[in-house]
Amino acid sequence: MSSHEHRKFPADFPAAPLTLEGFSVLHQMFRIRRAEWRTLEAAKRERAIAEASATFDEMARREDRESALFSELGHKGDLMIVHFRRSLDELGEAQRAVGKLALSDFLEATTSYVSVIEIGLYEATLALCERLFELGIKPRTDEWRAEIEAELSRQRSKIMPRLFPRIPERRYLCFYPMDKKREANDNWYRLSMSERRRLMHDHGMVGRRYAGEVTQIISGSIGFDDWEWGVDLFADDPLVFKKLVYEMRFDEASAGYAKFGPFYIAIRMKPSDLASTFAV
Amino acid sequence: MSSHEHRKFPADFPAAPLTLEGFSVLHQMFRIRRAEWRTLEAAKRERAIAEASATFDEMARREDRESALFSELGHKGDLMIVHFRRSLDELGEAQRAVGKLALSDFLEATTSYVSVIEIGLYEATLALCERLFELGIKPRTDEWRAEIEAELSRQRSKIMPRLFPRIPERRYLCFYPMDKKREANDNWYRLSMSERRRLMHDHGMVGRRYAGEVTQIISGSIGFDDWEWGVDLFADDPLVFKKLVYEMRFDEASAGYAKFGPFYIAIRMKPSDLASTFAV
Amino acid sequence: MSSHEHRKFPADFPAAPLTLEGFSVLHQMFRIRRAEWRTLEAAKRERAIAEASATFDEMARREDRESALFSELGHKGDLMIVHFRRSLDELGEAQRAVGKLALSDFLEATTSYVSVIEIGLYEATLALCERLFELGIKPRTDEWRAEIEAELSRQRSKIMPRLFPRIPERRYLCFYPMDKKREANDNWYRLSMSERRRLMHDHGMVGRRYAGEVTQIISGSIGFDDWEWGVDLFADDPLVFKKLVYEMRFDEASAGYAKFGPFYIAIRMKPSDLASTFAV
Amino acid sequence: MSSHEHRKFPADFPAAPLTLEGFSVLHQMFRIRRAEWRTLEAAKRERAIAEASATFDEMARREDRESALFSELGHKGDLMIVHFRRSLDELGEAQRAVGKLALSDFLEATTSYVSVIEIGLYEATLALCERLFELGIKPRTDEWRAEIEAELSRQRSKIMPRLFPRIPERRYLCFYPMDKKREANDNWYRLSMSERRRLMHDHGMVGRRYAGEVTQIISGSIGFDDWEWGVDLFADDPLVFKKLVYEMRFDEASAGYAKFGPFYIAIRMKPSDLASTFAV
Amino acid sequence: MSSHEHRKFPADFPAAPLTLEGFSVLHQMFRIRRAEWRTLEAAKRERAIAEASATFDEMARREDRESALFSELGHKGDLMIVHFRRSLDELGEAQRAVGKLALSDFLEATTSYVSVIEIGLYEATLALCERLFELGIKPRTDEWRAEIEAELSRQRSKIMPRLFPRIPERRYLCFYPMDKKREANDNWYRLSMSERRRLMHDHGMVGRRYAGEVTQIISGSIGFDDWEWGVDLFADDPLVFKKLVYEMRFDEASAGYAKFGPFYIAIRMKPSDLASTFAV
Repeated sequence: MSSHEHRKFPADFPAAPLTLEGFSVLHQMFRIRRAEWRTLEAAKRERAIAEASATFDEMARREDRESALFSELGHKGDLMIVHFRRSLDELGEAQRAVGKLALSDFLEATTSYVSVIEIGLYEATLALCERLFELGIKPRTDEWRAEIEAELSRQRSKIMPRLFPRIPERRYLCFYPMDKKREANDNWYRLSMSERRRLMHDHGMVGRRYAGEVTQIISGSIGFDDWEWGVDLFADDPLVFKKLVYEMRFDEASAGYAKFGPFYIAIRMKPSDLASTFAV
Repeated sequence: MSSHEHRKFPADFPAAPLTLEGFSVLHQMFRIRRAEWRTLEAAKRERAIAEASATFDEMARREDRESALFSELGHKGDLMIVHFRRSLDELGEAQRAVGKLALSDFLEATTSYVSVIEIGLYEATLALCERLFELGIKPRTDEWRAEIEAELSRQRSKIMPRLFPRIPERRYLCFYPMDKKREANDNWYRLSMSERRRLMHDHGMVGRRYAGEVTQIISGSIGFDDWEWGVDLFADDPLVFKKLVYEMRFDEASAGYAKFGPFYIAIRMKPSDLASTFAV
Repeated sequence: MSSHEHRKFPADFPAAPLTLEGFSVLHQMFRIRRAEWRTLEAAKRERAIAEASATFDEMARREDRESALFSELGHKGDLMIVHFRRSLDELGEAQRAVGKLALSDFLEATTSYVSVIEIGLYEATLALCERLFELGIKPRTDEWRAEIEAELSRQRSKIMPRLFPRIPERRYLCFYPMDKKREANDNWYRLSMSERRRLMHDHGMVGRRYAGEVTQIISGSIGFDDWEWGVDLFADDPLVFKKLVYEMRFDEASAGYAKFGPFYIAIRMKPSDLASTFAV
Repeated sequence: MSSHEHRKFPADFPAAPLTLEGFSVLHQMFRIRRAEWRTLEAAKRERAIAEASATFDEMARREDRESALFSELGHKGDLMIVHFRRSLDELGEAQRAVGKLALSDFLEATTSYVSVIEIGLYEATLALCERLFELGIKPRTDEWRAEIEAELSRQRSKIMPRLFPRIPERRYLCFYPMDKKREANDNWYRLSMSERRRLMHDHGMVGRRYAGEVTQIISGSIGFDDWEWGVDLFADDPLVFKKLVYEMRFDEASAGYAKFGPFYIAIRMKPSDLASTFAV
Repeated sequence: MSSHEHRKFPADFPAAPLTLEGFSVLHQMFRIRRAEWRTLEAAKRERAIAEASATFDEMARREDRESALFSELGHKGDLMIVHFRRSLDELGEAQRAVGKLALSDFLEATTSYVSVIEIGLYEATLALCERLFELGIKPRTDEWRAEIEAELSRQRSKIMPRLFPRIPERRYLCFYPMDKKREANDNWYRLSMSERRRLMHDHGMVGRRYAGEVTQIISGSIGFDDWEWGVDLFADDPLVFKKLVYEMRFDEASAGYAKFGPFYIAIRMKPSDLASTFAV
């Protein structure tokens, strides 16, 4: 049986693919209140920048639980902060740490995004279901659960670095949230798992062609924020974003089922660049 | 006749399931105006925190008519307050009590939600309709009304604690409002009651698998707020929200008929945590 | 011929039912700027409350051209004012009178609604059209117009009190605007008048079951505001709103053709309650 | 051949009807910042009102390039200014003239609309195409262009006063923007010109019944603002707006193809009324 | 084989046409805070205007990396700045340069648009695919890539001035973003490339008729901003925008597949006009 021809499983088989989760992620977008900032006396401005630089420098140096700064283009914001953390609680701490900076009095939160790095295991889920089906193991029995946990452990150990990655060291960031459509005949959630697997596979093939040029991090936000997934693309040439996202728009999964939120385009900055960003 | 094969009732039979209502619920979301807050002198800040802590402490201690505080993630708000009360009037009092706090001068209401805890009785409604149909009791006669009231009383006494629950003592809250679709071929309100019953039953089965991990409170908001229902999920592991809501998205009721509003994710805090939340 | 089997009229017969109009209506929703209000000195606050109470007291006492105050739940507003007047000009005066109050400096208009109390005469229109058709009177001739005016006069005298009602003295108000859909196969404006009559009749039957518990006032806003109709429901038990609107959602007119705007839920207050609403 | 049975033209024939354009139009909507206004000293308020009254008085007196003031109902704005001018440049000047008024510091622009008075020539376009087709004149040849220019000149001279009208001297204004739908089977831009002509003709017949009661000015805004057309209705009895727009909603062009934007309802005011509108 | 009859390529052939990219483009829209501006002392106002004029004068003089100023009509903004630059980084610098102006304290960013000048090569892509198909060269092999790079180079050298154009010296600008629909049966991304080529060809023919009157610059924004493309039209007679966009609305590509964002209409201004724009 080819990898694309899976049997249709009984109705009590799971419909959602197994997923593995890694870092909790918070994107914060801020507009700089320049008019107010300029009225602050120079010494206070310097202290505020020094304090913020030190804070973000510390957050940027960590091997784990990293934060990175980006300078946004356009009116949606001037500053984007991306936090990778070990839990929502740690994200809350990061949010509060930013909120406590003197600089924060001059930042207006325009938007944000809460998600968790996620890897969907369509292939492994289907292979496992095949096997459990043939073994006659019933869904949601203890045996079933044990098999699933074992599979998740195996997968987790293989892809740990993709679940807990560094924030890629590339110059440009393209971030956007997205949904799968649930409309009339274009309803992702009414497709069989093997059909979704096929579509995601083909969709992934497009991404793979850009493997060397773009680092992609997918995070899940069902239950956490207003869209189902967040997509972060990192590249050294921003035109690659346009080419990749355009090309993907034609694959069957996107053409038929993707719904895109707003797009944010930003340039990586070092904490030490804050001084020039906030220069009056 | 299996529980899924109900007769089609005459057209004058009710289309809406019987429901039981409990606490009136108000969700309030606030953004902290940190810049203004920081300009307040320290003594006044301390007094404002002390006053708010005392107020919320009193509200949190009650066995009945409870309020709880949550710290939100992202820009949608910093503070969420959930009030369970015996009436809309009491919710109004809670709202005014919050509004009177000195701390309120530094809170900007970003959104809110008004609803009433609701339990839909599809099974009982259908069983009762069966019985009344066989007894030849006509809808909306006195006899019919008496039977309904009797049934509601029976049910109410059985599920009283679910109608007037404590706010679950779990660390994370996921709140979102939702509608049932009324679109072309995906129109919930054009389905027969037994079809809706079947879909809600299957939908409920997904929830039941997470029974130990998630406490769910459904409140109805038809006539009260912009969506038809509010969903509060409480858990000790926030990843469970993602898994549960994702899995539910594939059940027939959600895939075909659910329309979701914004999602709010928050972490429980004690009134005594206000001091650190508002630390400058 | 039963009341539900009307002939299809010639194409030049009117498609819109006759309507009768009564009071012009303005709903004003305000958020209280508590932080600013609290900075006002106590004496000025007292004067502002006294002035507003006197103004609204006078407006509330009138037998005709009445205004009433409501306290809203949630962030959509704190104060709702409903004005019934004899003309748009008088509504403009009411709006300016509110705007001139010292208290207005502390009220932020969050939304509003402009409409005119309307009673749609489907039954009478169809009966009249039947008669005129049989008499061979052609649409839009002088004779036709005279018959219509005569019918409107007859109807107006019968339902005058429903066109110029008091603001019902019930504790709770549920207000929402709505449209009839014009979508693909669910297009209200493509139905025949007798089909619409049938649907409105059945829709009305649901409302009639709640006659004792809910007072409903429909106002038309085509040409005046963003939705086609405004619905005001008044009741002493707010759960009745939920039950009524839920039950109505299943009738054919609503299930297939209704589109609902935001819902506002509020509690009646007396002008003398302003002091406690604005207590600091 | 009856006026409703046009041949289908070759594919290279124009699809858009010829149009004639007149005044450039700007609608400006403002909310009055009453709280700030009241803090201004009386003498400055008087000077600001005097200046604004003089400016608008001059603009209102002109036979050509007129501006008119309206007082809005509801929260969408308090003051609407409608400018008719000979060019976009002159609209820009009018906008700057308003912006320079001392009164402008107390006006918050809530919305606006940019358009050009337009008369669509469906009948003339089809008749001309008929003739050119029979003469064998090919589209977009010099001969074709000359014929079109000649036709436009003929039409322009006939309807000049409708292209450059006075702002009608009626007490009430109803303004709303609208689009023609481009949805699945309800796609205006996929209809043949003669089909659109028929629909617009029937649509126009509804309007004609109100000829004495309503003065209608249509302006085109494709390329200028977010909707395709703006509609201004002027009447001495505002109920006529409701009756006209409701009746029109049933004609085939509106029922199937119209998409309506927000509605603005306002009452004409004289520049000398500014004093009472801004009375504190 | 006529230019419109292309074979259907194998499934692994690219679905997106080749594109060439030129200048990075930023549109910035600002509202002037006139009330605050007027409170600034005259000398400071003069200095701010002088500084801004000098900055924009320098930006406007460049042969390459040009910026231009436009005065907007309506409430969407008073000032539009269009920047053409060699990279996103340079756009960021332009944005910061504007942000540093003293004048910026009196500018409120209402919106913006980030894109890259793009020319889609449907004809060349199809011709190349034909040739590679006949040569048996497989997609995404080195040979294939080399052929593509060679073709892109050839094309680039031919149309370099269209990729890196001057900002056209015409008096009026019409800017709007747009998408191609992905709805049920109107899904651009499910059409074959040759079908899209045909539609774009016909669409282009409409534009060509206006070649002398309108200069059109298309920029791509997939991955950069919320719509897929930005359209800038420059003309000396603004009515041409209305005629062109209206006529285009009937071509098959637009009627069936175009989704339009907001429209911005503006008048070119010289940096030396800032003084009169900001005159108090």
